[in-house]
Amino acid sequence: MTAERLPNWLRKRAELSPDRVAVEFDNRSYTFDELNKMAEETARKLASKGIRYGDICAVLMRNHIDSVVMLHALFYLGVKIVMLNNRLTPNELTWQIIDSQSEWFISEEHFSKKLKQIDKGLSGVKILKKEEIRLFTGMDEARIQEEFILQETATIMYTSGTSGNPKGVIQTFGNHWWSAMGSVLNLGLTEEDCWFCGVPIFHISGLSIFMRNVIYGMKVILVEKFDETEVNAMIQQKGVTIISVVTAMLNRVLLDLGNNSYPDSFRCMLLGGGPAPRHLLDECKSKGIPVYQTYGMTETSSQIVTLAPEYSMTKIGSAGKPLFPSQLKIEVEGRKAMPDEPGEIVVSGPNVTMGYLNREEETEKAIKNGWLYTGDIGYLDSEGFLYVMDRRSDLFISGGENVYPAEIESIISQHPAVFEAGVTSTDDEKWGQVPVAFVVVHEDTETDEKELISYCKQHLAAYKVPGQIIFCSSLPRNSSNKLLRRELKKSLGARK
Amino acid sequence: MTAERLPNWLRKRAELSPDRVAVEFDNRSYTFDELNKMAEETARKLASKGIRYGDICAVLMRNHIDSVVMLHALFYLGVKIVMLNNRLTPNELTWQIIDSQSEWFISEEHFSKKLKQIDKGLSGVKILKKEEIRLFTGMDEARIQEEFILQETATIMYTSGTSGNPKGVIQTFGNHWWSAMGSVLNLGLTEEDCWFCGVPIFHISGLSIFMRNVIYGMKVILVEKFDETEVNAMIQQKGVTIISVVTAMLNRVLLDLGNNSYPDSFRCMLLGGGPAPRHLLDECKSKGIPVYQTYGMTETSSQIVTLAPEYSMTKIGSAGKPLFPSQLKIEVEGRKAMPDEPGEIVVSGPNVTMGYLNREEETEKAIKNGWLYTGDIGYLDSEGFLYVMDRRSDLFISGGENVYPAEIESIISQHPAVFEAGVTSTDDEKWGQVPVAFVVVHEDTETDEKELISYCKQHLAAYKVPGQIIFCSSLPRNSSNKLLRRELKKSLGARK
Repeated sequence: MTAERLPNWLRKRAELSPDRVAVEFDNRSYTFDELNKMAEETARKLASKGIRYGDICAVLMRNHIDSVVMLHALFYLGVKIVMLNNRLTPNELTWQIIDSQSEWFISEEHFSKKLKQIDKGLSGVKILKKEEIRLFTGMDEARIQEEFILQETATIMYTSGTSGNPKGVIQTFGNHWWSAMGSVLNLGLTEEDCWFCGVPIFHISGLSIFMRNVIYGMKVILVEKFDETEVNAMIQQKGVTIISVVTAMLNRVLLDLGNNSYPDSFRCMLLGGGPAPRHLLDECKSKGIPVYQTYGMTETSSQIVTLAPEYSMTKIGSAGKPLFPSQLKIEVEGRKAMPDEPGEIVVSGPNVTMGYLNREEETEKAIKNGWLYTGDIGYLDSEGFLYVMDRRSDLFISGGENVYPAEIESIISQHPAVFEAGVTSTDDEKWGQVPVAFVVVHEDTETDEKELISYCKQHLAAYKVPGQIIFCSSLPRNSSNKLLRRELKKSLGARK
Repeated sequence: MTAERLPNWLRKRAELSPDRVAVEFDNRSYTFDELNKMAEETARKLASKGIRYGDICAVLMRNHIDSVVMLHALFYLGVKIVMLNNRLTPNELTWQIIDSQSEWFISEEHFSKKLKQIDKGLSGVKILKKEEIRLFTGMDEARIQEEFILQETATIMYTSGTSGNPKGVIQTFGNHWWSAMGSVLNLGLTEEDCWFCGVPIFHISGLSIFMRNVIYGMKVILVEKFDETEVNAMIQQKGVTIISVVTAMLNRVLLDLGNNSYPDSFRCMLLGGGPAPRHLLDECKSKGIPVYQTYGMTETSSQIVTLAPEYSMTKIGSAGKPLFPSQLKIEVEGRKAMPDEPGEIVVSGPNVTMGYLNREEETEKAIKNGWLYTGDIGYLDSEGFLYVMDRRSDLFISGGENVYPAEIESIISQHPAVFEAGVTSTDDEKWGQVPVAFVVVHEDTETDEKELISYCKQHLAAYKVPGQIIFCSSLPRNSSNKLLRRELKKSLGARK
C-alpha cells in the first residue's frame, strides 16, 4: 500500500491518547479528547452554514485555543485554509483573500476595525466571526474527513518575493507530515515533551508546532503574545522542554534570564529566522542553553536543516545538515559548489511545497526537477554542514518576519509624488533589521518623510514601514536597469 | 512534492551522525560511518560479480554484523532481498529460492551442510558465500542507490497459510519506513536509546530493528542467539533501553532475573508473537517491567497494534490500538463487530504489504480495498482496545515461529504409508506450543511414530516436527469434508 492517506490526525490522536493534555492556553488545559470534541462541534457548526469539502477559507485569528480548534474543524471538513498574517493592513489582507479565491473568511471581533475595511473590498466572500459561529446550532451530521490525503492542500501561506506581490505557498498534509517526521528523527520525542508556542500560528513556525502536537501526541503551551518573562517562568517551572524562537526573541529571553539558568529537562531552543549573531550563540553556550540553529521557510513547511544535538556546541554558527527525509546542495552558476564555496541554497524533500497557488510561471522558476531554489546564499563546510550567509538579497528579517523590499517599493511608488523608490535595511537593536527607503520624487512635486511614512502605514503592516526615508536624485542601477539594493546598503553605511 | 523517494537510509544516517555507534556485535562497536563504508565496500564487491539493480537475491545468514552489512550492501545496489529462515530444511529453502525466482543466493560457510543439498536442487541460480565475497577485489565504481523509492520492493519474507505452501510477502521501502514511523510515534526516541536484537534478522521482528537503527540513528546490540543471562546483563549493565521478545523468551528472561530488577533507563519490553498468558503479564507488572504487548505480522512489516505507555498497566492483556498511521476493524460475516464481539481482525495502513510475490489470487483473497484480512480472531473493547484471542485456527506459535498445520500435514501425507494426516498443537512449557500429528495409514501398510518423525525431520525445520504422532482410523471432517482441527485439539485434551 502506498502512503497516500492517513487517519485524520487529531481524531486518531484522541483515539490513541485521549487523556493526555494537548494544549494549555490561558491557564486552562485541553486534552486530546476535548480538543477533538471541540473541533467536531465547530465543524458541525461550520457545515451548517454550508462550508464544504474542497472550499477555500481564509482565516484571520490570534494565537488562541479557539484558533487551534478552528483550524482542526476546517481540516475535519476538508477545507483548504489560507493562513492570514494578522499584522497585515486591511488592503494587504483583502488582496490575499481575493488572490487565493477564498469563498470564506473567518475572523474574530478582536479585528473588528480591520474587518470593516476588509468587508468593503470583498464581494462574494462569505464572512464569519468566531463569536457568531459559536452561536450556530450546528448540524447533527457533518461529513468529517476520516482520512487525510497526503497530496491534498492543507494550508496556504503567503510570502513575497522579488516581484513585490505575495504568492500563496501550498502546504499539503504530506508536507506537514514529513516536516514533523524530519523533526522527530532529529530531536527525538519523550512522554515528558512540551513545546512552547510563542510564535504566531499563522506562520509556519507556529503552525508546525500544532501539527507535531497531534501527530506526536505532545503537549503544547500556547500564548497569545511572546513575553520573555513568561517564557522563562514556563521553562523553569512548567516543564517546557522545547521552544521555537527567532533571534530577537532569544535576545529578550537571555536579557530577562540574567544569571539564572534552565533545568536539565529543557532540551531544545530551536532558533530559526535567519543567521544568528555569533555572540548570541556564545552566550547561550556559556549558559549551557541547548540552542539548535535551524534553517527553513514557508516553502519547506518549517525546518529543513537543523544542527543535530551532538554538534550543537562544536559547529556553532552552522544550521546543520538537511533533516532525514530532505536533501540539500549549493549551486554556483549551474554547477555544484566546492566545500566552503558560497552559492545558492537548493533543497528537496517531501516537506517541500509543490508550488505557489495559481502561479505556474513562478512555481516553475522556483522549483526545478523537484529542487527548490531558495535564493538564499550559504556554503557547506568540508563535513557537509550548512552555513547560511545571508537570506536572499531581496529579503531581510525584522522581528522574525520576512520583509521584502520590492513589496515596500511598490507601495511607496504608488504615492503620487514619488517617481521611484529603493528599499534596504539597517541594523536595529530591538528588531534585528528595519527597512529604510531611498526615494526619488517627481519634478515639481513636493512631499516629506512624515507624509510618506504615514502613506506606508495605511498600506503596509507596521513591521514593513520604513524607519527612515532618504530623498535622493537617482537610484543605483546596473546596465540592464536592475535596482542595486546592495549599493543602497553601502551608501547607507557611508552616511553613518 | 510527493514522498516517493527518500535519501538512501544508511548513507543519510552516516552523513547526519557518523560517529554515533550503530551496531554492537561480539564486543565490537561499529559507527554509522563505519557501517556505511563496510556496506559500500561490499556493494562494490557484489557489483563486480554482476549483481545489479532489480535483481532478486535470496540470503541465508545468521544474526551477525556481516549479515547487517550484506543487507545494506544489497539495498545500496537496489537488489530485492529474499530473507530465508535459517531453521528451514534444504528442501524448504530450495523451494523458496526457486519460487521467488531469485537470480542470486548468498549464504555463509556455517551452513555448508545445508548448502550442499540446496546446490543440487538449484540450477541457474548463482551462489555466493560471504567468505568468498570478502576476497573479491571489487570495482572502483558501483552504481549505489542515492535514493530509495518507497514503492519499490526492499525485502521478501515467506510465510505459510491455509494452502500449505509458503507465500512470499512483499515488503517495500515504504512499508518499512512507515512501520518505523508508527513505532516512534508510540514509543518515542531519545539519544540514549539502545535496542537489543536477540530475535532473528530473517524475521520481521529482527529486520525491523535494523530499519529503525538507520532511520532513527539508534544503537542496536545484536547477538547471534538469544540468551536470557546475557539479555539481563545487557539491560542491567550495558544501557539497553528497548528489547523485542516473544512469550517464550520473556519466560526465560524472568526466570533468570529472579528477584533482581531492571534500571529505570530500561523502558520497553516489546512483546510480540501471539497472546501472552495473563500470569506472565502480572508477574512483569509486579516486577515493574514495562511490557508493551504488540500485535503484528510479516504482512504488516512488524507492529501494527501496540499498547501505549499510559495503558501498559491498566489494559493488561490488550495489544492496544493501531499505531498512528494504521487502522483496524473487527469483522463478523461482512459487518463491523460490536464492542466486545469477537471477529476477524482486519487492518490497513502504509506499513501493510501490497501482497504476495507472484500470487495474484491469494493477494486478492487477503487484501480487499486496501484492508488486509489477517484471519486472526479478536475483539475491541468499548474503548477501542484490541484483544487478540487467537491467531487464526490454522496457525500456532512455537518458540516465536509461526507454525502452519497444513504445511506439516502436506509433508506427512507424502509418506508412502500415510493415507491422511491432521495436525494441531499442544501446550509446552518451553516452546509455548508444539505440533502433534494425527495420522491415518493406508490399509495393508505399516509404519510407526519413529519412522514418521524421522521422515518429518528430513523435510521440515525442527520447530515444525511433531512431538507426537497419534495413529487413528479417521480424521474429524465437516459435511464439506473440511478437516476440523479444533476437534483434533479437543480429542487431544480428552486423551490427557
